[in-house]
Amino acid sequence: VVESWSFLDTVESNFRPLVVIELAKGTKEETIEWFTKRIVDKKANGGAQLLIKPLVMENGAENIYLVGASHLRLLLGAETVGLVKECSDNSMRTFTYSSRKTFKDFADDNHNFLTMAECQYIIKHELENLRAKTEKMIPGYPQAKLYPGKSIVRRLLTSGILVQIFPLHDREELKKLRHSWYGRVKVGYQPLDDIRCYFGETIALYFGFLEYFTFALIPMAVIGIPYYVFAWEDYDKYVMFATFNLLWSTVILEVWKRICAILTYCWGTLLMKRQFEEPRPGFHGVLGVNPVTGREEPVYSSLKRQLRIYLVSLPFVCLCLYFSLYVMMIYFDLEQWALDYHKENESNFSSLMLYVPSIIYAVVIEIMNRIYRYAAEFLTSWENHRLESSYQNHLILKVLVFNFLNCFASLFYIAFVLFDMKLLRQSLATLLITSQILNQFAESLLPYWLQKRYNRRMKKRMCSQKTDTDMSIAEQVNMEKEMGTYLGTFDDYLELFLQFGYVSLFSCVYPLAAVFAVLNNITEIYSDALKMCRVYKRPFAEPTANIGVWQLAFETMSVISVVTNCILIGMSPQVDALFPDSKMDLVLTVALVEHLILAIKFIMAFVIPDKPRDIQMKLAKLEFESLEALKQQVRAFQMQLHFLLIHH
Amino acid sequence: VVESWSFLDTVESNFRPLVVIELAKGTKEETIEWFTKRIVDKKANGGAQLLIKPLVMENGAENIYLVGASHLRLLLGAETVGLVKECSDNSMRTFTYSSRKTFKDFADDNHNFLTMAECQYIIKHELENLRAKTEKMIPGYPQAKLYPGKSIVRRLLTSGILVQIFPLHDREELKKLRHSWYGRVKVGYQPLDDIRCYFGETIALYFGFLEYFTFALIPMAVIGIPYYVFAWEDYDKYVMFATFNLLWSTVILEVWKRICAILTYCWGTLLMKRQFEEPRPGFHGVLGVNPVTGREEPVYSSLKRQLRIYLVSLPFVCLCLYFSLYVMMIYFDLEQWALDYHKENESNFSSLMLYVPSIIYAVVIEIMNRIYRYAAEFLTSWENHRLESSYQNHLILKVLVFNFLNCFASLFYIAFVLFDMKLLRQSLATLLITSQILNQFAESLLPYWLQKRYNRRMKKRMCSQKTDTDMSIAEQVNMEKEMGTYLGTFDDYLELFLQFGYVSLFSCVYPLAAVFAVLNNITEIYSDALKMCRVYKRPFAEPTANIGVWQLAFETMSVISVVTNCILIGMSPQVDALFPDSKMDLVLTVALVEHLILAIKFIMAFVIPDKPRDIQMKLAKLEFESLEALKQQVRAFQMQLHFLLIHH
Repeated sequence: VVESWSFLDTVESNFRPLVVIELAKGTKEETIEWFTKRIVDKKANGGAQLLIKPLVMENGAENIYLVGASHLRLLLGAETVGLVKECSDNSMRTFTYSSRKTFKDFADDNHNFLTMAECQYIIKHELENLRAKTEKMIPGYPQAKLYPGKSIVRRLLTSGILVQIFPLHDREELKKLRHSWYGRVKVGYQPLDDIRCYFGETIALYFGFLEYFTFALIPMAVIGIPYYVFAWEDYDKYVMFATFNLLWSTVILEVWKRICAILTYCWGTLLMKRQFEEPRPGFHGVLGVNPVTGREEPVYSSLKRQLRIYLVSLPFVCLCLYFSLYVMMIYFDLEQWALDYHKENESNFSSLMLYVPSIIYAVVIEIMNRIYRYAAEFLTSWENHRLESSYQNHLILKVLVFNFLNCFASLFYIAFVLFDMKLLRQSLATLLITSQILNQFAESLLPYWLQKRYNRRMKKRMCSQKTDTDMSIAEQVNMEKEMGTYLGTFDDYLELFLQFGYVSLFSCVYPLAAVFAVLNNITEIYSDALKMCRVYKRPFAEPTANIGVWQLAFETMSVISVVTNCILIGMSPQVDALFPDSKMDLVLTVALVEHLILAIKFIMAFVIPDKPRDIQMKLAKLEFESLEALKQQVRAFQMQLHFLLIHH
Repeated sequence: VVESWSFLDTVESNFRPLVVIELAKGTKEETIEWFTKRIVDKKANGGAQLLIKPLVMENGAENIYLVGASHLRLLLGAETVGLVKECSDNSMRTFTYSSRKTFKDFADDNHNFLTMAECQYIIKHELENLRAKTEKMIPGYPQAKLYPGKSIVRRLLTSGILVQIFPLHDREELKKLRHSWYGRVKVGYQPLDDIRCYFGETIALYFGFLEYFTFALIPMAVIGIPYYVFAWEDYDKYVMFATFNLLWSTVILEVWKRICAILTYCWGTLLMKRQFEEPRPGFHGVLGVNPVTGREEPVYSSLKRQLRIYLVSLPFVCLCLYFSLYVMMIYFDLEQWALDYHKENESNFSSLMLYVPSIIYAVVIEIMNRIYRYAAEFLTSWENHRLESSYQNHLILKVLVFNFLNCFASLFYIAFVLFDMKLLRQSLATLLITSQILNQFAESLLPYWLQKRYNRRMKKRMCSQKTDTDMSIAEQVNMEKEMGTYLGTFDDYLELFLQFGYVSLFSCVYPLAAVFAVLNNITEIYSDALKMCRVYKRPFAEPTANIGVWQLAFETMSVISVVTNCILIGMSPQVDALFPDSKMDLVLTVALVEHLILAIKFIMAFVIPDKPRDIQMKLAKLEFESLEALKQQVRAFQMQLHFLLIHH
């Protein structure tokens, strides 16, 4: 059954193309031969034992290859990557080939036991783990050095020989998913399990969080509406609203952890063991011995990296922050000018003009955020972090600090330096709404429109009148390889994070923010879904057990918002009027309330368990079983040993 | 080699008694026979395969048994409990019998490879894991029910047949340890590794923490002395001292985590896998099926437990808190009375009388703390927690809340209601010093004196003039079994926790507190050492990787102390004088500084890594190795499988 295929073996009927490899034009023949040989070679010979077949295009060869694998190979790969699947008794277990019969829906002829996303993830993992043996360089490219244990695919990528690797869409499945996701007008949940099967856990978890967050904002929005409709300005109502908001935000973040645990338990990623982290592709250094693995590989001195971080990156970030504040001051000059103009002219036009500075500023903020994003990526990559996780942490920290200041500095300034609540409300509304519109446009609608135009041109060029579903593989690959690459959930979470800031930081001044956030998120679900299904190449699935550092970011934001809201309430004239004699009593009361709310928040976060009881029980059961199994092994071994010792 | 001994086998020359079992007087013969049979029985028959020998006393049999084990049995037991030992290449690895040759100092004839404390821990573990097979009850005691899988020793303990199990002292080793620990006057560190070898990791870690904490307090004490000597009262000096204190307390708690990681890495407990937790001995319920293990065992409804906690324990704790506050008010009445008396009489005696209420109150606080401790233990045990960890958490929470309020409520009242800094200083000093003296006396000196008197009487009764070291085993057992039982490190940590509160909560008012704390801790090390070596039975070693919930408790205290110190500084007349016009600016400035310090604290706690870099590297190396080993296994298995599939 497990015969290795040659890459010329293109006539095999049940070859299912899963992943596309695009090599650079003019790649040398010997390189292609060596690379494909390594891919199809037996595991025992250090190959990946996958199937590969060149794509024959009408307009001549373009160095595009389709990669697949036999059913058995995929099952063995599932064991290697440590997939967790559901058993017949409804418990989740790490899949092993020897225990395959105990898994739900497993049958030797059921090729749907692994989802397509899982198959593609396995193939990606196997390709990335294709390592150099004795090769000193990539054949045909003496400048592309290799050393034993170096990932071949990563070296090919960094030296530009390999243009891209991406998984193929399944047009049938995608059509079904599109229909159930956003194809029909309906009230209901997203098909998260289908999304997970098609796009993997990281993306499904983002959509799960987006949906959850939208639902969680609804109570805030509902309570916020009457404040706007009846123009309530009583201090007690505001205090109630703000207190509710502050405690509510803690509750929703804690409850999310529980929901996340339920989702990822069912998806198997909660139980999945972490793989050992390899150096990221861009990492470079001089050849040395890695103290952890004992392997010879590039090492880069930690001191040099620290110097780059503290002597270059940190000053640069500070400079950017200063620049952002400088732009903010220009905005306030503009604001002043618009106000003066309105006072002089007092026309409809001039009152419209009042909003113009805020709108311009919102656009400038968005542009600055995007430019800074590139700079931060460049700098962090220049810092030469060895691990992807360390790179991500430094990037996220840089981006979060700047975006936080860039978006909220003007609001803080208006609130706590100018003490102008009317301007704060107006500015908050303009910034929030403008940034939402810009984001929706820049993220989804614009790429969608460009993609559509490009597709139309492509089709015209190919002179084919076929519908999407009966395109040939060649046409499909040709179309998909030109699509943009989805760069991960970072930007999507960042957008939600800033939105959470707009909603919670000044919630007691502008209760309507939650309403806008809810409306935005509902359209966001649809536009993000559109973006995933129509605009970008299919991304590789990434198993993940939680939303990672974003949980911490949202929690920090909710702590900061306690402070801002307490100060805002303390500054309101209604509360002021309650303490006519002593401003000091006012401040003391506000400080006391703030500390109380913070204490309640921390106690609540501590008391609410991170995992629901039944998930805890299931995890305990699994742990018990694995310990029992270990004990059995030790006992069996000991008995064997005793037997040997006694009888010999 | 591995021949099971009968319990009558008392003449074997190299039997080393490790653990003592004392059965109740008049225990039925059939019970003794059954129990000893189970202890010596082969593992394969469900026994513990240990050695046991009755202790023959001069004054007739007293149902005391000595338990030991062969060297091989202990090595196999070390594998079962998952001991981590140092290898020849200086890395730490989980001990397995098959890889025994790779471990440092291992030799088949080296019986000191396992420390005596480790041997005793293994024997305790094996005894506790002696489980009922088909027995429905303890033979001879029909009311002592058993069910398959129930720990026999726990049932024997709860039904009173087994009086106690304790490990024997090693008088030679103990003498050496005493000498190097507190036997000679010297300046230097404690012999932590020796303490760990003799008493186990939990106790060694406590002494490590005590020593570390004492050293960490020295900078505070040194800076505090000139404030007292020169009677500095400038606000800037106080602000500096308080700020230093607040940041310093964060640093020392973070650095402790690193030192703790270094210690426990060297001791092997950092890497030790957690064992599956069995129900605690006192747990009872109706027979049902445990959803986690699937075994039939007593279960107790979680709802009932919640009801007991919220309807009985919580109101009781609140009542105790109320009572504590009531006693506090009486103390203030006394204080007022003493003040009036002093004003009337103005004598030396009357000025001494001023301290009397504080001293009485300090004594009352200590008494209340101790009574409450018993009540809390009773209540928590009545709540019927299934796991020891859950029991401990509920007990610690109850005790911490009450002790915190009981000790500090009066100080908070004086500081923030009476605004009397002079009284605060006086009260703080009296409470701190009195409680330290009381604790040293009640914990160590009194028991030591009682023990000594008892020992003298015992020796007289036995009419023997021998010194400690050449006592017979029988005499030694007879003496040790009457010694008190050390109840764990809870009280010791609690004392340090309260001391930390006295030092940090009001540090800017009474900088001398740190000096007293340092002096107390130096004597505390000696008196605690005395207590461990002389007063109590040797405790069983408990492997542990950190100080657990106390880390959180200390961190919480350091956050609370930021708030109190900022308020105290804000209230001082010197700072007051800086803001002559507006009290509001003063309060705002104080609040701002407080938030800044809190933010710095959290950032510092986040930035300082919990484990030093080299420990991180070593852990990563181990993880890498185990993943590699797993991969090798999977690969070998896959190749085998491929081979089979191809050739058959």
